[in-house]
Amino acid sequence: MAGNTFGNNFKLMTFGESHGEAIGGVIDGCPSGIALDFDAIQKELDRRKPGQSAIVTQRKESDTVHFLSGIFEGKTTGTPIGFIIPNENQKSDDYSHIKDTYRPSHADYVYEQKYGIRDYRGGGRSSARETASRVVAGAIAKQIAPEIKIHAFVSSVGDISIDKTYQDLDFSLIESNPVRCPDLAVAEKMENYIKQIRKDGDTVGGVITCVIQNVPVGLGEPVFDRLHADLGKAMLSINAVKGFEYGSGFSGAKMKGSEHNDLFNADGTTRTNFSGGIQGGISNGMDIYFRVAFKPVATIMQKQEVLDDKGNLTEQQGKGRHDPCVVPRAVPIVEAMAMLVIVDNLL
Amino acid sequence: MAGNTFGNNFKLMTFGESHGEAIGGVIDGCPSGIALDFDAIQKELDRRKPGQSAIVTQRKESDTVHFLSGIFEGKTTGTPIGFIIPNENQKSDDYSHIKDTYRPSHADYVYEQKYGIRDYRGGGRSSARETASRVVAGAIAKQIAPEIKIHAFVSSVGDISIDKTYQDLDFSLIESNPVRCPDLAVAEKMENYIKQIRKDGDTVGGVITCVIQNVPVGLGEPVFDRLHADLGKAMLSINAVKGFEYGSGFSGAKMKGSEHNDLFNADGTTRTNFSGGIQGGISNGMDIYFRVAFKPVATIMQKQEVLDDKGNLTEQQGKGRHDPCVVPRAVPIVEAMAMLVIVDNLL
Amino acid sequence: MAGNTFGNNFKLMTFGESHGEAIGGVIDGCPSGIALDFDAIQKELDRRKPGQSAIVTQRKESDTVHFLSGIFEGKTTGTPIGFIIPNENQKSDDYSHIKDTYRPSHADYVYEQKYGIRDYRGGGRSSARETASRVVAGAIAKQIAPEIKIHAFVSSVGDISIDKTYQDLDFSLIESNPVRCPDLAVAEKMENYIKQIRKDGDTVGGVITCVIQNVPVGLGEPVFDRLHADLGKAMLSINAVKGFEYGSGFSGAKMKGSEHNDLFNADGTTRTNFSGGIQGGISNGMDIYFRVAFKPVATIMQKQEVLDDKGNLTEQQGKGRHDPCVVPRAVPIVEAMAMLVIVDNLL
Amino acid sequence: MAGNTFGNNFKLMTFGESHGEAIGGVIDGCPSGIALDFDAIQKELDRRKPGQSAIVTQRKESDTVHFLSGIFEGKTTGTPIGFIIPNENQKSDDYSHIKDTYRPSHADYVYEQKYGIRDYRGGGRSSARETASRVVAGAIAKQIAPEIKIHAFVSSVGDISIDKTYQDLDFSLIESNPVRCPDLAVAEKMENYIKQIRKDGDTVGGVITCVIQNVPVGLGEPVFDRLHADLGKAMLSINAVKGFEYGSGFSGAKMKGSEHNDLFNADGTTRTNFSGGIQGGISNGMDIYFRVAFKPVATIMQKQEVLDDKGNLTEQQGKGRHDPCVVPRAVPIVEAMAMLVIVDNLL
Repeated sequence: MAGNTFGNNFKLMTFGESHGEAIGGVIDGCPSGIALDFDAIQKELDRRKPGQSAIVTQRKESDTVHFLSGIFEGKTTGTPIGFIIPNENQKSDDYSHIKDTYRPSHADYVYEQKYGIRDYRGGGRSSARETASRVVAGAIAKQIAPEIKIHAFVSSVGDISIDKTYQDLDFSLIESNPVRCPDLAVAEKMENYIKQIRKDGDTVGGVITCVIQNVPVGLGEPVFDRLHADLGKAMLSINAVKGFEYGSGFSGAKMKGSEHNDLFNADGTTRTNFSGGIQGGISNGMDIYFRVAFKPVATIMQKQEVLDDKGNLTEQQGKGRHDPCVVPRAVPIVEAMAMLVIVDNLL
Repeated sequence: MAGNTFGNNFKLMTFGESHGEAIGGVIDGCPSGIALDFDAIQKELDRRKPGQSAIVTQRKESDTVHFLSGIFEGKTTGTPIGFIIPNENQKSDDYSHIKDTYRPSHADYVYEQKYGIRDYRGGGRSSARETASRVVAGAIAKQIAPEIKIHAFVSSVGDISIDKTYQDLDFSLIESNPVRCPDLAVAEKMENYIKQIRKDGDTVGGVITCVIQNVPVGLGEPVFDRLHADLGKAMLSINAVKGFEYGSGFSGAKMKGSEHNDLFNADGTTRTNFSGGIQGGISNGMDIYFRVAFKPVATIMQKQEVLDDKGNLTEQQGKGRHDPCVVPRAVPIVEAMAMLVIVDNLL
Repeated sequence: MAGNTFGNNFKLMTFGESHGEAIGGVIDGCPSGIALDFDAIQKELDRRKPGQSAIVTQRKESDTVHFLSGIFEGKTTGTPIGFIIPNENQKSDDYSHIKDTYRPSHADYVYEQKYGIRDYRGGGRSSARETASRVVAGAIAKQIAPEIKIHAFVSSVGDISIDKTYQDLDFSLIESNPVRCPDLAVAEKMENYIKQIRKDGDTVGGVITCVIQNVPVGLGEPVFDRLHADLGKAMLSINAVKGFEYGSGFSGAKMKGSEHNDLFNADGTTRTNFSGGIQGGISNGMDIYFRVAFKPVATIMQKQEVLDDKGNLTEQQGKGRHDPCVVPRAVPIVEAMAMLVIVDNLL
Repeated sequence: MAGNTFGNNFKLMTFGESHGEAIGGVIDGCPSGIALDFDAIQKELDRRKPGQSAIVTQRKESDTVHFLSGIFEGKTTGTPIGFIIPNENQKSDDYSHIKDTYRPSHADYVYEQKYGIRDYRGGGRSSARETASRVVAGAIAKQIAPEIKIHAFVSSVGDISIDKTYQDLDFSLIESNPVRCPDLAVAEKMENYIKQIRKDGDTVGGVITCVIQNVPVGLGEPVFDRLHADLGKAMLSINAVKGFEYGSGFSGAKMKGSEHNDLFNADGTTRTNFSGGIQGGISNGMDIYFRVAFKPVATIMQKQEVLDDKGNLTEQQGKGRHDPCVVPRAVPIVEAMAMLVIVDNLL
């Protein structure tokens, strides 16, 4: 079970290293007859791509998806959708300095230990570049279930957080700023903070909140494949994610049952929604919402000790063009993975 | 994909409702030739069983496991291990009052909507009783990999928390108190608090921390089946769980890269362990540790509004014998599910 | 992937050895709300059970299935259906003579080599007794899709064969004779031949033909999971099966395209049906039919050389009560496995 | 479960239509550190490609595989191997005449019924062109397990058959003739017959025999995933296959146990091998051999009645360049699928 496949009914297998010729994927199980909006797919990729604003990595890649199969005269045919995203900007020389060294809190060391070989040009397979393929599949999933409304946004960067509930936010403002934070005053603080972090040659973590609306009652399988367990696994499979909570989450652990129980309305909806739209692992028709914690990017532009393959510790200066904060570009990835789970359960 | 199977190489399928004749499971993929310690298996079940102390549900069930196959002359044979745990204390009359009503924050409503039928005697399949089968499988997993050391414990109940790191705790004290908290001063506070909650007819949530030591380098598959994603899904599949974080977790989202990066020692170990023993989804040989948030039990001994199947809201008094706080009994479940993941990846 | 699970949407996991306490299984994915006819299930088991006629093994076992879960007030609930079939007639002493020896063309030797341990009482897990659990699941599958008409029958025993096409047979005669052959003249010859084989202490192989009618157009997935590939795997997973062919089968390999092509009628049906109801791996609505070859039972009541675990060859006389010809009792197993495939694809 | 993935540990997902831009696949689970022989891979593709001799289709395609990932400095890295094979010779106009018609014994009708849409240019996804991707994966599998010796060859074309056992054949002669039949006298007859069939505008079926040597004892999982069941499914997933038998196969159904039992030698090998190298679903170290029946290609160069999408039957003349007999080109496909099964079980 080599780990590069996601989903059962709507299945995605991805391939590709950050500095190979191309990355890509195959989607198996897409329903037939869907007229794809290719601009919408590319737009999702553009939300994830490098170089899109002053607060993300300045690498230049157009991240253009190229479909090879499964589509005929603009419509899906029900056969596997194969696609590639060429790697335009390989610049391997950026990485020659890390050929024999393991950077702290990267996957270099464990890949070398596990496989005995490693594509040392960039992160190889462990690079977040792989997530571009997920965004393609997620964009198609959105078109399969257009009735589902999904909005992810940045709710924290370092210590700076939105202090409103999601109901008090205007989701149409998410894309209005480079941080993808719908509270504009907070967004500005976050943006300035990220710029300062970049100047310091440092990085910082953050939190993304995701809200999924209009999910029908009944999605999710009891016991092991609860809907929130699938969502949690999907989020934890994204690079740099350290935690997942849904509904009341960790703060629910502090509450009493008499406070936490979501009393019914007569139509089966609930007055509160500490459950986060999922009860017993099955969607109850209320909004599904969850929070995803991202650690700071491990590549920093400061001197750090690294380990080499002979067991020596030496100082090394970070090079290249990296994100000072990963969450603005991770927003479309969170949405994509959530949609893969929802559509896999819908089909 | 009906959701009652967990794992790929070491696979568990469970069955059974809380008030049927028996629950049970089948383990497929257990290596052959393992001389099972049946007392150790039963001891794990005893840690989960009702009635074990004054702060848990007072239902009486011996939770005795009975093996039907896969074992010959005390050793595993490599064939499937089928087992049952009879339901001794069905007392269905306790539940007649909920036949036509949906209790808030239970699975009653969504099961009825999804399946059109529901075993209304207790939680049916959504009852935490199902987790006894997981504890059996987890106890066998422990015996497959005795070199792995795993300790879960209660780190929070409501607002009461241990404020030490796990390195400062003595794991041998976990079983010394009914809360399963190794900080004895905190344990006493928790115990008193749970007793008060019970008197109030209320319930309260909590957090379990789990530490896994001696895991070899290299467990976990890149991309979708990262070790922490599998652990997260395993934990989120346990009843009442609302959140999962590993290593630095949500607090890591507030940190800078220069603080968070785990610098190497010359032997490949790291000086700090914000990574939580997993980098790039693959174990790096350091301690794996994570936290799991549990919401308060939904059944409370107070009057609450319930919805009936005709759309009427009526008041109902909770009945029966339920846990005021689920975390003390959930400790062996967390360990069991973690071991299922570890052994599934080891094999 | 330990091999004891069948199906994806309608999933069966079986467990149990021939001489353990019980065999059984768990069905995951059965739709909810089906009012089960328990007599019909037991009747299918009775078609497979030992001792049913003079030409099968004279072991006495009632093969009574006992359901543990997934059924409430006579209806399926959508949760896993766990069941056991107790082993009544264990008579382990029958098998003490084979504790240290490997019988020719049995699984003794390969199990010992693969697992290093073996339940030597009877065939253990490799005994055809395991197929009783499949018959239970298949009987439930028949009730899920009552519109599907399925008839398996014995078409050959040794050199004696039906020489009519299935269209010329009266399926209602299948159960009228102990061989389960609907051509009564041929059935009588087969019965006499099997009796002679039994007197000789020998065994003989045979062929079962299966016809499935009323299958909707569109079942089966392209490429790897073609409907006939799934049927073939299902049949080849039955003990003693050596071959599978559908539609024109091996004789189709001798034909020309101009003879073999099934010309259409205007309604999409075809005038001939060499395709066997499946084109490109997908059902086309015509009758699905296939043939399954069974080798002779390996246990014979004659002296044979066996190998012991020290590498010695010694003569041994077969003991116990075995089938002289396996096909009469295999008819319900073929139907059961076919229905598992059909229902798995229907759901 | 959309059916375009094969294998569990060594997993292949394929994509692509015959007249799209490219076909291809992704291999997940290939061990790391294998120095690939790319010429050997291409050579396998050349054995399958069109235009290789006078008795196969005269379409011209170079079938050149292009690897996109999973390989670094000539060695596998353990990450997914993505590859494409561009479609050079699309000539879609060849197919405009079948846009609205369903050809007899093709997949046109069932695809249209199942998906409501169909890539009518050639066979689309149901074209045997898809098998080129399997040949790539099988060629890599051969390099993972170079100790396994596998030889497939044509043993029958129409009524012309080899009448020797495989032990009496010289496998080195298989590639010496365009039919891939190691009995040269029979090969010549077959070749002439195929040429005559081509002149007649007709097609003919055939049988491929495959022998796998040097397989270790112990491959295959009991019960549902028996080694021969996996091999059978693999073969039945190849276009045009109608039957599979291993070891004694259908002729074993005519034998007595006293003839069919494979008596042991003292070293655990057997004197005869009616078992076909597999007992109880597990390899016993003897040669594995099996036979695969292929129907005649459905596209013939004669007038035939076709059905159109309005329910009219009209005569149509077959066009294009098709194989008069599929088995010579199917030999490398049979080997590839067999190696996928063997390596999947080895890993």
